[in-house]
Amino acid sequence: MELEPEDPRVPLRRVCWQGDARREDVDEVVREEPLEIRIGGIPVAVVMRTPGHDEELVLGFLATEGVVEGPDAVRSVRHCTVVEDPEAEGNVVQATLRPGVEVDWARLRRNLYASSSCGLCGKASIDQLMLRCDPLVDDTRVEVERVYELPTRLEAAQTVFARTGGLHAAGLFDADGQPLVVREDVGRHNAVDKVVGWALERGQLPLRGHVLMVSGRVSYEIAQKTVAAGIPVLAAVSAPSSLAVQLAARAGVTLVAFLRGQRLSVYAGAERIVASRAAGR
Amino acid sequence: MELEPEDPRVPLRRVCWQGDARREDVDEVVREEPLEIRIGGIPVAVVMRTPGHDEELVLGFLATEGVVEGPDAVRSVRHCTVVEDPEAEGNVVQATLRPGVEVDWARLRRNLYASSSCGLCGKASIDQLMLRCDPLVDDTRVEVERVYELPTRLEAAQTVFARTGGLHAAGLFDADGQPLVVREDVGRHNAVDKVVGWALERGQLPLRGHVLMVSGRVSYEIAQKTVAAGIPVLAAVSAPSSLAVQLAARAGVTLVAFLRGQRLSVYAGAERIVASRAAGR
Repeated sequence: MELEPEDPRVPLRRVCWQGDARREDVDEVVREEPLEIRIGGIPVAVVMRTPGHDEELVLGFLATEGVVEGPDAVRSVRHCTVVEDPEAEGNVVQATLRPGVEVDWARLRRNLYASSSCGLCGKASIDQLMLRCDPLVDDTRVEVERVYELPTRLEAAQTVFARTGGLHAAGLFDADGQPLVVREDVGRHNAVDKVVGWALERGQLPLRGHVLMVSGRVSYEIAQKTVAAGIPVLAAVSAPSSLAVQLAARAGVTLVAFLRGQRLSVYAGAERIVASRAAGR
Repeated sequence: MELEPEDPRVPLRRVCWQGDARREDVDEVVREEPLEIRIGGIPVAVVMRTPGHDEELVLGFLATEGVVEGPDAVRSVRHCTVVEDPEAEGNVVQATLRPGVEVDWARLRRNLYASSSCGLCGKASIDQLMLRCDPLVDDTRVEVERVYELPTRLEAAQTVFARTGGLHAAGLFDADGQPLVVREDVGRHNAVDKVVGWALERGQLPLRGHVLMVSGRVSYEIAQKTVAAGIPVLAAVSAPSSLAVQLAARAGVTLVAFLRGQRLSVYAGAERIVASRAAGR
């Protein structure tokens, strides 16, 4: 019986709200970093993963993608120690197959990232995205009481089936917490894309002054879509990843997570969440 | 305020266990189907999504991938009505851009599927996978009481942080419910790949006679990895998608979902889950 040997946690400063009370502390969020998988020197995929057991991840990827059937087909799997960017060290794994093992490159390209341009570490991924997205300048302020109401408003727009049956939801709200559109999908990134597409159709991009609420966790991909759509506030019921927080901070997006009842945590852009007027401020 | 107009539900037969009592009924699971996105006739991505608001999904994809910034860049977005496979109708969307809008094809290929070979409907996706994976012949039987214990055993192997902090877990068990390995990751598919890679390293593929337990939902991708690893029983805390159930049924894999306390539902391969000996059978 083996357990995860590496620490998957990253300590980050955050602002915690409970009711109208605000305090700061340090929280730990799950580590997320890109991993480039190479076969015989050729990059075949970049996956966003939690570092640790990378060799197993690559072996499992090779097996479940149908590249290899047993350990005999693999000569070695190891981290590349010579990579162009020192920050990418640990984020590139090279698999060397036995001579004679055929690779179906066309099928493998299924999940291929354009890895020559995509960053091989979290920082490079963010750098690349920021080349096409300027940091957000948006003086939107949202009263914390309005944020507390978002999960209930999102749920109210969902069917019972959606809440219980495995659908992710994404909702777009104005800064007063009024819902504009809610979309659902088996894939959380699709639900966000549907909301952004709804806004694009109406000529409303970039979505300055709005709040995006998602039903689940916030990974890099969800934060990336929020940044690309120019939405200043992203709120989620569950936990954020380290890379989502880093991107939000860099892009000037407010990231609210663990939004439950009268509690929430703000991991980036905390200035946009303000005490309620009802509290007399 | 708009809501999802199409029905995202698919009715499916299942076997429900509560304690040692077994009954059959019909349940509804969330619909999952591939969608091919084409720009000017060129396939750029296949995403697994819940049908409905497909045009918004494609517009949002184009916006968040940085292809277009506003509605003026898009001439039209519509479903292709002429596709080779009639079952794929509704699963191909063609976006036509205004003349002069430049597309960065290299960056777009990030999520590119080899769509010429990948199926454009759920059935074709499964057909293609089954070309390299024979239906499982495996007479493993698991007592329902052992299945009920899996979530507790999976949690026991996780840290408090993992349970609360946004990490997915996948655990491999023998047919008596004894844990062999547990892996965690920000991506649920990565946690499964790490478990499969662990087994590959030890020459244990295909994993006949084993049970894979995952902490979240079961999408097509998780079912596909289970099939590829030759695991006869897949169990999950949360809901399955329609395509995951269809694949499991076709591949001869048992799919257990909504595994909570002394209750579970079996959506495929129900013969492998049997009453406990303690019940006197």
